[in-house]
Amino acid sequence: MNDVFTIRRQVEFNHCDPAGIVFYPRYFEMISSATERFFSDALDFSWATMGLVDGFGTPMGNIETRFYAPSRLEDWLTISITAKRVGTSSLTLQIECHCEDERRFACKATLVHANIQTGTSHPWPDAPRAAMTRYLLSVNSNQEDLS
Amino acid sequence: MNDVFTIRRQVEFNHCDPAGIVFYPRYFEMISSATERFFSDALDFSWATMGLVDGFGTPMGNIETRFYAPSRLEDWLTISITAKRVGTSSLTLQIECHCEDERRFACKATLVHANIQTGTSHPWPDAPRAAMTRYLLSVNSNQEDLS
Amino acid sequence: MNDVFTIRRQVEFNHCDPAGIVFYPRYFEMISSATERFFSDALDFSWATMGLVDGFGTPMGNIETRFYAPSRLEDWLTISITAKRVGTSSLTLQIECHCEDERRFACKATLVHANIQTGTSHPWPDAPRAAMTRYLLSVNSNQEDLS
Amino acid sequence: MNDVFTIRRQVEFNHCDPAGIVFYPRYFEMISSATERFFSDALDFSWATMGLVDGFGTPMGNIETRFYAPSRLEDWLTISITAKRVGTSSLTLQIECHCEDERRFACKATLVHANIQTGTSHPWPDAPRAAMTRYLLSVNSNQEDLS
Repeated sequence: MNDVFTIRRQVEFNHCDPAGIVFYPRYFEMISSATERFFSDALDFSWATMGLVDGFGTPMGNIETRFYAPSRLEDWLTISITAKRVGTSSLTLQIECHCEDERRFACKATLVHANIQTGTSHPWPDAPRAAMTRYLLSVNSNQEDLS
Repeated sequence: MNDVFTIRRQVEFNHCDPAGIVFYPRYFEMISSATERFFSDALDFSWATMGLVDGFGTPMGNIETRFYAPSRLEDWLTISITAKRVGTSSLTLQIECHCEDERRFACKATLVHANIQTGTSHPWPDAPRAAMTRYLLSVNSNQEDLS
Repeated sequence: MNDVFTIRRQVEFNHCDPAGIVFYPRYFEMISSATERFFSDALDFSWATMGLVDGFGTPMGNIETRFYAPSRLEDWLTISITAKRVGTSSLTLQIECHCEDERRFACKATLVHANIQTGTSHPWPDAPRAAMTRYLLSVNSNQEDLS
Repeated sequence: MNDVFTIRRQVEFNHCDPAGIVFYPRYFEMISSATERFFSDALDFSWATMGLVDGFGTPMGNIETRFYAPSRLEDWLTISITAKRVGTSSLTLQIECHCEDERRFACKATLVHANIQTGTSHPWPDAPRAAMTRYLLSVNSNQEDLS
């Protein structure tokens, strides 16, 4: 049984478009925030440490998102993160967003541990890699694959 | 030979993250802007008209994006849009972003013509549908498929 | 002694600019979020209720902000709100942001209770007005005036 | 007679809130964009050059904005910039936004030329300072003072 990293966030006025629903680029800001917290709180490998100390970051390589139902002002969203694949210097996350029982979006995102200035990828250090594996989806998971 | 809809946009300070490169959620704002202009200028079917007059919009159903190289402050980006598939009430766009000869990202996005309040999809009117087909990628196009 | 409404927020990657400090338009998003929570939690008069039920909102009339020191990634900010003046249909807020003992910004903002479609101002209902007065800065407050 | 620096920008979907009007934090993004272009195009002293070559920037010190009328989707805005005061290492700008003849907002903003890492202010180089003076409001200007 894998761990699941979860944050809760309420839909604010600034997330909503003239149709009264969350504007989808704001979901990507939420996805970035959730990923930032995952690195900091679940992996103990925060972006501030990475960038300030070592000049590394985790640029996004590929992201696929399917939207199932719109979100509205004041909805409470639960965003959960698990790992689909841990590579040498890459990480594929499965990110799900629900409001109570309704799925709002599902996302598969692959990011890369890279030196920002040179653009070259760099292996994950051992400690965060070990932490990532705890969030790895079990083989028998019945979680629906997005792709 | 299909038409291609193109806009040019310069990377601004507000698009860039602490690593000095475009923060990927800002790309989705650019994708939204480019799509907005495509509906307005290429299809003569603007979101303002849709939403204000008829209560309809074009919520995103699915979007897949691959990032090839980072963009930096003051880079001039060329964002081009073609249609991959014109459905009864959906539209799949292929969106490419280049800086000179370098590809920065490629995106496949499927949006739906829908009544925002009820959430039900609604067929495209004839005029914008006819316009969409002019941007439809030819079968023999050598454009690389993202998926 | 007046009440003070306080929220805490951590500086995220998406708030920071290429200089590594919070980009000031993001502070205005935080100010809007804090104001949204103040209306909802302190005044029990949420924007969702206002807008959805009655067609009213609280557009900003005037906002003055002085920045004292930059904020950086992962700083924990304390944003506090008090009322400087409760008008018939307007409200002037004093919003202060600190990181521990260091003041980051101070803001004086006057917003108006108005019908969004017609643009006409509208008196505050009695209940939220009574709540506002609990947050009114006492006359003898030694709080520095921004203006 | 002073010069006036002007940019035009159309209100996009991503600028608008659930009330269908421009969300005021988006105006501050426009103000930042206009200021960025002013430094680059009017002063020939771009932020990219400043930050990349010399480690300097122009953090905002104080900004006061009055909103006169709401802006809506597809409005064409004209944002004009003049200088109110050129200091040794500071610059106070007067920024006005109109849609045709209607004033939408007026803003007085003081930014500082500073070393971002140390936080110390630094005198403007001669060339951009000379350019700033060309945009200085004449003493007899009948432009209304915001403050």
